[in-house]
Amino acid sequence: MHECTFVILGATGDLAKRKLIPAIYKLVRDKKVEKFAIVGVGLEDVSAAEMLAPAKQYIKKLDEGVWAQLAQRATYFSFDFYEPDHFIRLRNELEKIEGQHELSGDRMFYLATMPEHFATITQQLAAAQIVKKGATTKPWSRIVYEKPFGHDLPSARAINESIAKVFTEEQVYRIDHYLGKELVGNISLIRFTNRVLEPLWNNENIESVQIVLSEKIGIENRGVFYEKAGAIRDMVQSHMLQMVALVAMEAPKELSGHHIRDAKAAVLDKIKAQSVVLGQYDGYKDEDGVGLSSNTETFAAIKLTVENSRWKGVPFYLKTGKFLPEKKTAIYIKFKPVKCLLSNACPSDTNYLTIEVFPEAGFYLELNAKVPGATQEVVPVKMEFCHSCLFGPNTPEAYETLLHDVIRGDQSVFVRSDEIEDSWKIVDEIKSWNTKVYPYKPGTKGPDALDLLDDEVKVRWRS
Amino acid sequence: MHECTFVILGATGDLAKRKLIPAIYKLVRDKKVEKFAIVGVGLEDVSAAEMLAPAKQYIKKLDEGVWAQLAQRATYFSFDFYEPDHFIRLRNELEKIEGQHELSGDRMFYLATMPEHFATITQQLAAAQIVKKGATTKPWSRIVYEKPFGHDLPSARAINESIAKVFTEEQVYRIDHYLGKELVGNISLIRFTNRVLEPLWNNENIESVQIVLSEKIGIENRGVFYEKAGAIRDMVQSHMLQMVALVAMEAPKELSGHHIRDAKAAVLDKIKAQSVVLGQYDGYKDEDGVGLSSNTETFAAIKLTVENSRWKGVPFYLKTGKFLPEKKTAIYIKFKPVKCLLSNACPSDTNYLTIEVFPEAGFYLELNAKVPGATQEVVPVKMEFCHSCLFGPNTPEAYETLLHDVIRGDQSVFVRSDEIEDSWKIVDEIKSWNTKVYPYKPGTKGPDALDLLDDEVKVRWRS
Repeated sequence: MHECTFVILGATGDLAKRKLIPAIYKLVRDKKVEKFAIVGVGLEDVSAAEMLAPAKQYIKKLDEGVWAQLAQRATYFSFDFYEPDHFIRLRNELEKIEGQHELSGDRMFYLATMPEHFATITQQLAAAQIVKKGATTKPWSRIVYEKPFGHDLPSARAINESIAKVFTEEQVYRIDHYLGKELVGNISLIRFTNRVLEPLWNNENIESVQIVLSEKIGIENRGVFYEKAGAIRDMVQSHMLQMVALVAMEAPKELSGHHIRDAKAAVLDKIKAQSVVLGQYDGYKDEDGVGLSSNTETFAAIKLTVENSRWKGVPFYLKTGKFLPEKKTAIYIKFKPVKCLLSNACPSDTNYLTIEVFPEAGFYLELNAKVPGATQEVVPVKMEFCHSCLFGPNTPEAYETLLHDVIRGDQSVFVRSDEIEDSWKIVDEIKSWNTKVYPYKPGTKGPDALDLLDDEVKVRWRS
Repeated sequence: MHECTFVILGATGDLAKRKLIPAIYKLVRDKKVEKFAIVGVGLEDVSAAEMLAPAKQYIKKLDEGVWAQLAQRATYFSFDFYEPDHFIRLRNELEKIEGQHELSGDRMFYLATMPEHFATITQQLAAAQIVKKGATTKPWSRIVYEKPFGHDLPSARAINESIAKVFTEEQVYRIDHYLGKELVGNISLIRFTNRVLEPLWNNENIESVQIVLSEKIGIENRGVFYEKAGAIRDMVQSHMLQMVALVAMEAPKELSGHHIRDAKAAVLDKIKAQSVVLGQYDGYKDEDGVGLSSNTETFAAIKLTVENSRWKGVPFYLKTGKFLPEKKTAIYIKFKPVKCLLSNACPSDTNYLTIEVFPEAGFYLELNAKVPGATQEVVPVKMEFCHSCLFGPNTPEAYETLLHDVIRGDQSVFVRSDEIEDSWKIVDEIKSWNTKVYPYKPGTKGPDALDLLDDEVKVRWRS
């Protein structure tokens, strides 16, 4: 039986209403957590009911009985992260609430705040003796950090160091919500549980890997935040390099716990950025919070290599951007051509394995098959496995999966300190080049300069 | 522009009405042959119109204009294969008809007769100077033999020798109509035009191969024929060993012409029968033309090995029978298990590649994928490519494809003399064991003794 006191720091924010409270609701509904309390704190002065209410619209087919349980077990009080007294109050309230609900003190601290508060909150939790270093088993204290986790290697390292004073790594859950998505979770499982894939997974057979994370919308009033980030820090450092790591890592000893993180960290350390093309959509400079001299990229295409024997010679192409023609997240594994045994009808295209994360969740294998009739001609055809078709639309959403993992103490899909630092190393290197930022029109495929990404081949981007 | 004088020997038989005339109709309709005549001969005394008429019911959406062309260009006369004068008449008629229709004398002789007449007809065609040895190019003479091609190695060899006196191998088309089926034609193309398959195609990765050709019906009044054949001679010697050859052959130099036949013949020579389980359905002995002491098998399951380095240790299991639960033809490639990296949820099944010939035409890859939610569990899922879904129901039928190949002079899907003889060698070996024939009830999976097929593993038959 699982229990949990959910302590949400920043409980009136967007993340809490859109993702965290709906995820807790579903965990309760599905009996994945049986005893619980919700303790929200934040700057605003609202009631517990007012904290919960905005989340309702994000829950489909709301079960009022389950919702009533949340309402009964939720508390809110206003809070200043820089006020030690408030942390003392939090400690006392937690003890009182856990007593009321007969909870044994398993606590998840969820930092749904701006990252600049991470270090302070972490220190204050320790100072007020709310958390105990090394409390990995019952009653456990676990702390969850949202991204962005720093803005470069030194800042990330500083946060990690301040965390390490208060928590052991086993208590720390750095969220990358992409790792909670079903098809991202599938990458290592399909690689290592299928005989037909692993023997192909190397530079003998793979020509290139493409990872695309495109958005149809712009920055949507997040100008102040985005000016400090840009596409590379916002998307590449986190989601995209994590997907590269899952595709490129060596076989872990086991597909669980720290073994996957060992394997990811090892391969992140071998990644080398080769070139980049940056873009900024026309009109970006006019967005609120952005200035006319802004050089922030809203589009990035990157060529990486993985410096080991498995991947020698195989480029990894990453592409992400705002205001692109479609919202899509997908990984394309392009296989090398075959030696053509056909005299006059060689395959027009090579094989592709596509892992689609969004909009569909599924994977697809593009093969060549015979054109009907008395002919030796082949055409590309698609073998499909649609995850959502098989498992239905009730597949848990990322945050539900992730919170459940925290409760169960499974860190395999959370990002370890060394992975974070390795990723920032790669990103800092690219940022240090100060590459030109080319303009592009919203709704197009990005800047024309995209062709400059690789001077050896013309990249054929999939879509 | 293709032209052809179709000479059908046995023109009032079942094959002519069900398959040959409808196939010629479609070749004319689709303009795959532009100038033609049909000359039918047989024992019955009918008119040309009466020869054609029974075929009409086997043509969907008949175009009367196309049918009228067939009627105008069809001739029939009654004929005794043992009467040299009749062959002289055939020669004269052919010259006259080809003159009338301005045909240059490209002739396809289609032996839709009982195989005991093959040698005689072949000799008579030569004696009457209707065909010319070595006439492979315009005006060409090509001869097509239906199966069964002999009933054992000595009889097949005798037919081959008598043919070789009259024709060069380049003029000889031994039909195995399974080789005209789209998905059988796909086997070598998908193997050799897809990078994701060929590296897996060996005993490193494949555990076993199953080929199933099951029928729902019994022998249906063909008792006299079937008593001389049995399942092994009827199905294994031809269709099933050809499918084994296509799956097991080494890469041909080219995927065309004699290269595929070279590769098939080479691997047929390496096939060794290991064990067999035979069955006879209850009630078989009461069929017309069958006696109470009949020991003829209507069911056979065979374990073969291929004695080369690619296939060392990989059993090929064949299963065919009458009165089984479903009509199905499929090839199942079973891959070896992976080294399990999951602590508590190893895959329940390995990967399979299925090539389905009937009832659906398509191929399917069974993989493992992640069960949704916070879990490391995997379940088998299916990636499908449905050939008929993509290319529509107008895929040419086997005989249309095969006759078109004869006209184009493409022998790649016809069986060469050495392949025929190699196949009989394997079949004769199995027949020489005089294995017990077990009874089985119609509609069941065959005799219970099926479990005795392999003494090393319990074969898990797919369905």
